[in-house]
Amino acid sequence: MNQNKHWFVFTIVLILMSHMTNIDAKNKSVIKKLEPSSWWVGMKDPHLQLMIYGNDLSKYDVSIDYKGVSIQQVHKVENPNYQFIDLLISDEAKAGTFQIQLKSGNKVIESIDYVLNERDEGSANRKGFNSEDAMYLIMPDRFANGNPDNDSLPEMTEKANRKKDYGRHGGDLKGISDHLDYIQEMGYTAIWLNPVLENNQPRSSYHGYAITDFYQIDARLGSNEEFKALTQDCQKRGIKMIMDMVFNHCGSAHWWMEDLPMHDWINQWDEFTRSNYRLSTISDPYVSKYDKDLSVKGWFDTTMPDLNLENKFMLTYMIQNSIWWIEYAGLGGIRMDTYPYPDKNGMAQWTQRILNEYPDFNIVGESWITEASKLCYWQKDFPNRDGYNSYLPSLMDFPMQDAIKNAFNEEDSWGKGMERLYNTLADDHLYPNPLNMVVFPDNHDEGRILHSLNNDVEKLKMALAYSATTRGILQIYYGTELLMNGDGLKGHANIRKDFPGGWPKDSINAFVKEGRTAEQNQVFNYIKKLLNFRKQSEALKFGQTLHFIPEGGIYVYFRYTDNECVMVILNNNNSAKKLDTSRFSEKLQEYSEGTNVITGRAISNLNLINIKAKSALVIQLK
Amino acid sequence: MNQNKHWFVFTIVLILMSHMTNIDAKNKSVIKKLEPSSWWVGMKDPHLQLMIYGNDLSKYDVSIDYKGVSIQQVHKVENPNYQFIDLLISDEAKAGTFQIQLKSGNKVIESIDYVLNERDEGSANRKGFNSEDAMYLIMPDRFANGNPDNDSLPEMTEKANRKKDYGRHGGDLKGISDHLDYIQEMGYTAIWLNPVLENNQPRSSYHGYAITDFYQIDARLGSNEEFKALTQDCQKRGIKMIMDMVFNHCGSAHWWMEDLPMHDWINQWDEFTRSNYRLSTISDPYVSKYDKDLSVKGWFDTTMPDLNLENKFMLTYMIQNSIWWIEYAGLGGIRMDTYPYPDKNGMAQWTQRILNEYPDFNIVGESWITEASKLCYWQKDFPNRDGYNSYLPSLMDFPMQDAIKNAFNEEDSWGKGMERLYNTLADDHLYPNPLNMVVFPDNHDEGRILHSLNNDVEKLKMALAYSATTRGILQIYYGTELLMNGDGLKGHANIRKDFPGGWPKDSINAFVKEGRTAEQNQVFNYIKKLLNFRKQSEALKFGQTLHFIPEGGIYVYFRYTDNECVMVILNNNNSAKKLDTSRFSEKLQEYSEGTNVITGRAISNLNLINIKAKSALVIQLK
Repeated sequence: MNQNKHWFVFTIVLILMSHMTNIDAKNKSVIKKLEPSSWWVGMKDPHLQLMIYGNDLSKYDVSIDYKGVSIQQVHKVENPNYQFIDLLISDEAKAGTFQIQLKSGNKVIESIDYVLNERDEGSANRKGFNSEDAMYLIMPDRFANGNPDNDSLPEMTEKANRKKDYGRHGGDLKGISDHLDYIQEMGYTAIWLNPVLENNQPRSSYHGYAITDFYQIDARLGSNEEFKALTQDCQKRGIKMIMDMVFNHCGSAHWWMEDLPMHDWINQWDEFTRSNYRLSTISDPYVSKYDKDLSVKGWFDTTMPDLNLENKFMLTYMIQNSIWWIEYAGLGGIRMDTYPYPDKNGMAQWTQRILNEYPDFNIVGESWITEASKLCYWQKDFPNRDGYNSYLPSLMDFPMQDAIKNAFNEEDSWGKGMERLYNTLADDHLYPNPLNMVVFPDNHDEGRILHSLNNDVEKLKMALAYSATTRGILQIYYGTELLMNGDGLKGHANIRKDFPGGWPKDSINAFVKEGRTAEQNQVFNYIKKLLNFRKQSEALKFGQTLHFIPEGGIYVYFRYTDNECVMVILNNNNSAKKLDTSRFSEKLQEYSEGTNVITGRAISNLNLINIKAKSALVIQLK
Repeated sequence: MNQNKHWFVFTIVLILMSHMTNIDAKNKSVIKKLEPSSWWVGMKDPHLQLMIYGNDLSKYDVSIDYKGVSIQQVHKVENPNYQFIDLLISDEAKAGTFQIQLKSGNKVIESIDYVLNERDEGSANRKGFNSEDAMYLIMPDRFANGNPDNDSLPEMTEKANRKKDYGRHGGDLKGISDHLDYIQEMGYTAIWLNPVLENNQPRSSYHGYAITDFYQIDARLGSNEEFKALTQDCQKRGIKMIMDMVFNHCGSAHWWMEDLPMHDWINQWDEFTRSNYRLSTISDPYVSKYDKDLSVKGWFDTTMPDLNLENKFMLTYMIQNSIWWIEYAGLGGIRMDTYPYPDKNGMAQWTQRILNEYPDFNIVGESWITEASKLCYWQKDFPNRDGYNSYLPSLMDFPMQDAIKNAFNEEDSWGKGMERLYNTLADDHLYPNPLNMVVFPDNHDEGRILHSLNNDVEKLKMALAYSATTRGILQIYYGTELLMNGDGLKGHANIRKDFPGGWPKDSINAFVKEGRTAEQNQVFNYIKKLLNFRKQSEALKFGQTLHFIPEGGIYVYFRYTDNECVMVILNNNNSAKKLDTSRFSEKLQEYSEGTNVITGRAISNLNLINIKAKSALVIQLK
């Protein structure tokens, strides 16, 4: 997701690599890489394709002798240093370890252990995040440095330097693990971490989107075991771990960039060719091949080679990689980066495979499209005229985000102010599953919501109240509760600031009440009230929506089930209002009083409701 | 379609009516109204429901004795002055005249002739307008006064007065009939007339949208026979007649307003209640009953009672009325006013019935929705989640109009300028039938396109070139060729000006070349070139579209079939450009030269094409 790097960086990486010690010289073993490095018995899909890599390795035969495991096919490809081995792991296979042997004739050249694990109980039926969840988005390098020992490591090119905006700051998994109480207190039920896989790039590697090893947690963040432990700890607290995955590109320092399995493993161009970043090209019935190729095959950045999911070996590699992480770490969901950029058919095969293996799992795609007319193309089961089905269950609701960041700044008129929210929601007739849209005021790529709302804390609270009470899954970015207000146009560092208190010598520790200003505590508590109420409200989590055309800058909607009803009033005016509620009688007539969810105060007269200037009123009706 | 009138007008009308001579007193006949007044044999649907009206008429029995015609059911309704009689006209019925008898016991009280006509040959298979057509939109009262004798008539409340902006100016069918050469010369193949049915309202009746008799051409425009003759004359010239129909409302002076068949014949409110004009309410899954009722049942204007299509008698009345006009006058299409305002299920029954009777006919709905995400709900076969199918084949493309009126004014940037056109067209993945969208730069309800384009004739030409060469049916508003530039915000009169030369004493006659300024002739000829080229170009009429992301303010697209290809270049810059066309090679490589469609000049070098500042270049490739 970073575009601010340049082609020459990639060139430098290639030069550096050519001067690195040859892998072979470091290790006598023929097999330098074997991926996935382990697997499981009892998967619904019994197929597994191993990729093995080593000098001139294709000249050897591969054999396996283990009950229930058979080699179905061996693929020798363009590059003689690779083999792709199709295994069938039948129901007869038991968990255990077997040898993969490389042979030359009858002579065993090398033998390598391969582990088949037992799956965790309930793994196949794991429940992915859904509309009952509120997720906390964390940029791991910028949240908390729980283990200063891993900040700078010999094997990692880039060392920590908090003075650099685009440098590594030292945040890590331990830092997140140490502050789960903080996250849990606010009421979050899911955590989305920006990518935690290895980004061993020479610079600007902190954000995680230039992966150099798809099977390794970046050592500066922690180990695979630490990630698994964090995920399990979260699970115990009722918090789902959502892993940020990237299939569109890898980092230019990925190990395979030195020696690709085949020419079309990545999308190659004669000279560096940037994507046009035009996602409409994928759904446009009139698109030119020229524009579409640029969109899908152009590189996201100079340091991000574009993976080619039309290549079936690559696609299988990525599919297996994502399953490996779900099984290994126990994920509660995936956020897929740059969703529409790779080959859409490959992506659909991926989503189908994942949902076939885990029917109750969830995947949200970063589909950065602000027009509902174009975004709807991407949700599972949208009846596209071209026959395409993404099978992608959840979408980031960018049209709604666009509405949220503007609505509270505007005076109400046709299409402005509260009508933005109203009109955006009215587009839900398009989405096959509106409850599976992720509502978010901002994220790590855009100006902080408080900045968008002109640093007005009252507007921020309105945006939060709306986001937490409208239909869908909720996502809030770390630091929102601390009134972080970075301007995205001034660079990513502005919107990815270190969490105060996350570093041992920080002068302020905002993880504790005493370390937060009164205003920060006000917003912290506001979020806490909202999310903890949401947590127990079936109406907000799964309920129907009923809304009314905004009038006089006031937008009123209801979320309801058969047993519960929540009324939300947004007053976008700069003055307090007395709201005559007779217009809403079709729903309100069932109730005689209510409770202000934030203050806990009773509201005895539902006929005429007082609402302060620029504020949200969330009322549980009785 | 007019909103600028007031409730008190309706009140006045009612007062006037109560002082009018009682209908009974004027005529000894019991049956005052019988509608439809005639019908046809050999219709696909053999059912016909007659509405008869007269003082206390329900006390009589109705009988018919004619081979093949039987009374299936007689409906006596709330108001004893009405009967609705269901006839079955079987295959055995021959064209001819029969008697409808009103009886009291065995005594014949009254006998009235009813004519069953033979259908015109090919009537059922008539071809409606489609993407090969370019329609000329005319406001009949403001085009040409061919017959000054019908300007002011004793039976018509409002008399002609050209000095009044909202008065009757005297334009009529004869005026249109007299100038078909003019229309044909420009290359139009269809005419859409704003409503021509009787609007015997006390004032502001010129626009035709307050119909007071659904079976009568307004006498100030002409007679039913004249309309039929005009339609037939058009047909001979290859021009389809598109009738503007209004099912949402009638005029407050409609004869039935004095004595409604039943209370719910129209949507009644305790006090005048205006529609909220929110069309999104119909597709919105979260809409409140309150908002939806206002939208569908609220009145369009004080002088426009809202017809209730949920009432099955009313719905049948309107369906039969439209079939009557198709058969009687020989229509080539219908433009339905305020399409989403009446009950959507009733409207869908109507479209189904029409298309069942005339499978190749066409209907375009005025669905004034500028967001594709909401407009798509309304096109036939859009797979709506709520199961609704409008069966409406064609839509006015308001999102595209919005793009056209803005694009040429803007400097190009993300989403601005040429990108508006590009992005709008990219939404075509939503529409089940994009070729059946009507492209229009403006119409009788909005500011003239030249006004929107800041009176810049070069921009106007670009807008016309785009409209005539993009996919879909074309519609241009009368007077565009004369550089009419009215501002809609200054009132409807500004955008509905009299055509100069349409009135006997007009000092200028713009119907002839000599009466037009050089600039007017330039645009007249530009349209003429475009439309006459379009007329013979399969690529423009039915071809595929291929377009390229605009770059540097230049938008390039191709319309093509297997045998023909038209390239369009829009240069939105204020400077001339030399366009390197290598980017378009996927299509251009098939061709070596081209012809400028407007100038006829050869273009020998397709690799580098010169294009003037702010201009369109339409090239037929060879």
